[in-house]
Amino acid sequence: MYYDKAENMDRASLESLQLERLKSTLENAKNAPFYKEQLAGINPEDLQSAADITKLPFTTKDDLRSQYPYGMLTRSKDEFVRLHASSGTTGTPTAVFYTQKDLDTWADLMARCMYACGCRKSDVLQNMSGYGLFTGGLGIHYGSERLGMLTVPAGAGNTKRQIKLIRDFNVSVLHIIPSFALYFAQKVEEAGFDTADMPWKIALIGAEPHTEEARRKIEEMMHIKAYNSYGLSEMNGPGVAFECVHQNGMHVWEDAYIAEIIDPTTGEHVKEGEIGELVMTTLTREGMPIIRYRTRDLTRFIPGQCECGRTHRRIDRIAGRADDMMILKGVNIYPMQIEQCLMAMPEVGQNYLIELVTEGITDQLKVKVEVKDQFFVEDMRALQGLQKKIAKNLCNEILITPRVELCQHDSIPKGEGKAVRVVDKREK
Amino acid sequence: MYYDKAENMDRASLESLQLERLKSTLENAKNAPFYKEQLAGINPEDLQSAADITKLPFTTKDDLRSQYPYGMLTRSKDEFVRLHASSGTTGTPTAVFYTQKDLDTWADLMARCMYACGCRKSDVLQNMSGYGLFTGGLGIHYGSERLGMLTVPAGAGNTKRQIKLIRDFNVSVLHIIPSFALYFAQKVEEAGFDTADMPWKIALIGAEPHTEEARRKIEEMMHIKAYNSYGLSEMNGPGVAFECVHQNGMHVWEDAYIAEIIDPTTGEHVKEGEIGELVMTTLTREGMPIIRYRTRDLTRFIPGQCECGRTHRRIDRIAGRADDMMILKGVNIYPMQIEQCLMAMPEVGQNYLIELVTEGITDQLKVKVEVKDQFFVEDMRALQGLQKKIAKNLCNEILITPRVELCQHDSIPKGEGKAVRVVDKREK
Repeated sequence: MYYDKAENMDRASLESLQLERLKSTLENAKNAPFYKEQLAGINPEDLQSAADITKLPFTTKDDLRSQYPYGMLTRSKDEFVRLHASSGTTGTPTAVFYTQKDLDTWADLMARCMYACGCRKSDVLQNMSGYGLFTGGLGIHYGSERLGMLTVPAGAGNTKRQIKLIRDFNVSVLHIIPSFALYFAQKVEEAGFDTADMPWKIALIGAEPHTEEARRKIEEMMHIKAYNSYGLSEMNGPGVAFECVHQNGMHVWEDAYIAEIIDPTTGEHVKEGEIGELVMTTLTREGMPIIRYRTRDLTRFIPGQCECGRTHRRIDRIAGRADDMMILKGVNIYPMQIEQCLMAMPEVGQNYLIELVTEGITDQLKVKVEVKDQFFVEDMRALQGLQKKIAKNLCNEILITPRVELCQHDSIPKGEGKAVRVVDKREK
Repeated sequence: MYYDKAENMDRASLESLQLERLKSTLENAKNAPFYKEQLAGINPEDLQSAADITKLPFTTKDDLRSQYPYGMLTRSKDEFVRLHASSGTTGTPTAVFYTQKDLDTWADLMARCMYACGCRKSDVLQNMSGYGLFTGGLGIHYGSERLGMLTVPAGAGNTKRQIKLIRDFNVSVLHIIPSFALYFAQKVEEAGFDTADMPWKIALIGAEPHTEEARRKIEEMMHIKAYNSYGLSEMNGPGVAFECVHQNGMHVWEDAYIAEIIDPTTGEHVKEGEIGELVMTTLTREGMPIIRYRTRDLTRFIPGQCECGRTHRRIDRIAGRADDMMILKGVNIYPMQIEQCLMAMPEVGQNYLIELVTEGITDQLKVKVEVKDQFFVEDMRALQGLQKKIAKNLCNEILITPRVELCQHDSIPKGEGKAVRVVDKREK
């Protein structure tokens, strides 16, 4: 491990470290105009355990917008050496500021992430994402140098040059955007190289939510191990949570962050293992601490301890945005849950449609599912069997039994652009 | 000064520091395969003064190409954390490698440069150049953070967002490519802002050779002070030489580099103040030292000491490439010398043409010069006077009296693309 003592600390010590850091974070946060007001009635010394964080108010994206540009800062602007900002060409942007110490902390966290998935000082990393205001570029760059890897700041684009650099310098680690990875693999083949012969072994993916299937496809096409990661600029950028070599969920660095998962409507913690909105608190950021930030990202804690020995809890890959949540019969349902369940079944085709309808006095969930041609047979019993199987699998996932309607391949209308997956026809 | 003791060190101490560092550089360089061979017969202890550097062999761009990728490295590839490479999509590229210590040294040199032209910790710097393999982007970025400025990694492009960031964060320092600066100033005006009202005060320009006139135009249009700088990736990148607030030549950091100016044909030092090819030696780079690198860039040392108190010598702005040099009657002449001399005269128009011709047994220099309409009068005596004035000014600069031919505005044919300034009609 990159920091042995921090990464495999026993839970009791980790939680007492969290409490200590949460207290000092609160003290420090009160130097920022926003938190001075927000935390006015709160005495950090009243917190008995890290779990008492639930007594603190949330911070939202709108809060960050309203405090733009300097309302979240705990010290003079002169003490900061970096800022990253959202594009802000429309609407009020948000900005995140870093002191030199914050940049060091961030680089250490990034180095730890990379080490966890197998990167070592002797590796050569090619950073194939754009630099600039996007935290992914400079975040990975600083972490890679911190770990001591030879870092190739290739930036985005220019496929031909990327390939040449990879081959010339025996690049063993790529930082690549998932949606670009498949395109790139194809370009490598077109350039006359076999992806199996390329020197790479590890791909750091992330920056975009993607499915397990997409990861497996990248791994197969590129002959590489691809590791998912999670981050957001409000929490520095990348480096918040990262997969270890077991590729089974992303360890959240709990000595640097407190992660909570809440019901987005009630704000209460969900039960262990249930999906909800990820809420994050910084524990080691001095310039711009953020308390209980509503990420709007949906995930769940993966129960149990990881084989790697790290004691820091794992979150599952992001299952969509809290804003996509539907509430039906008092149950929270996320479209991504339905998608993942459907796509895991070999009989199911590419397209589906979720409908919420009112029948009599109750609301119902209907799911139209395209079936692959070879399974769409003229055998009523087989079709009914498939229908039941889908309904049962969905019920296991979302705790509600939907009405499943099987459709032929290509029969669900596809709009242009982003697919419409949910239609709400309920009476208000 | 950023490093008082280093920047205003008396010359004797500076030169003895150079000697000491040159010796250790040579010892270290011998660990690289290329220099092990190149410096085989040389004992660093035989050097009596920094001036003895002339006893060492040159290193050329072709040497770097032939050693690509690892032949210039003094230690295991594992010890390096960064590389920058020339594009290399055609021909053999060159690559420069940095250890963590080299990155630190480079960042310190950059911070010193910025401090010299007035940047302070309380400033906000917007880095408007691309990042990636181009050393200008990350070079300025690391230096700016090192100095403690709040650094906005805006990257290239997106003019609208650049303007918003500058206004929102009170950006006081821009790093901007000279050719982009004038375009940008226009865009700012088009967006409805007065450049005089923008918060900026300092522009770091460089990366492209440009004339004094171009600098003044940027300063006027943007209401900013623009500072020229010099660097090349073989010597880290930017940060090799930088203007101080007196804007009269660029101080070469002579505790980090030995600069020489040579006659590109003989390899001998030119006389103090004469133009020649800049040759650079690294004194503080551990991973990839380079001895007597032929930059092919033309400049001269500016005689005398700068009012700022820095003892490090200044080089003039780059006057072209050594490959452009003409030899006439045993004298080296550079087209840029002629251009600068002509463009400083109010009577001279936009275009000119240099011709080298053989007349009898001697070669002659002819210069065709377009004259502005208001000076192209039907007064033979006035025209002859102007002709003589131009010839005399040119002779003062290049030590040869050319034949000057005055032409009307727009009478010298302009080709498409890059202007042809020199036509060699000499018999071989």
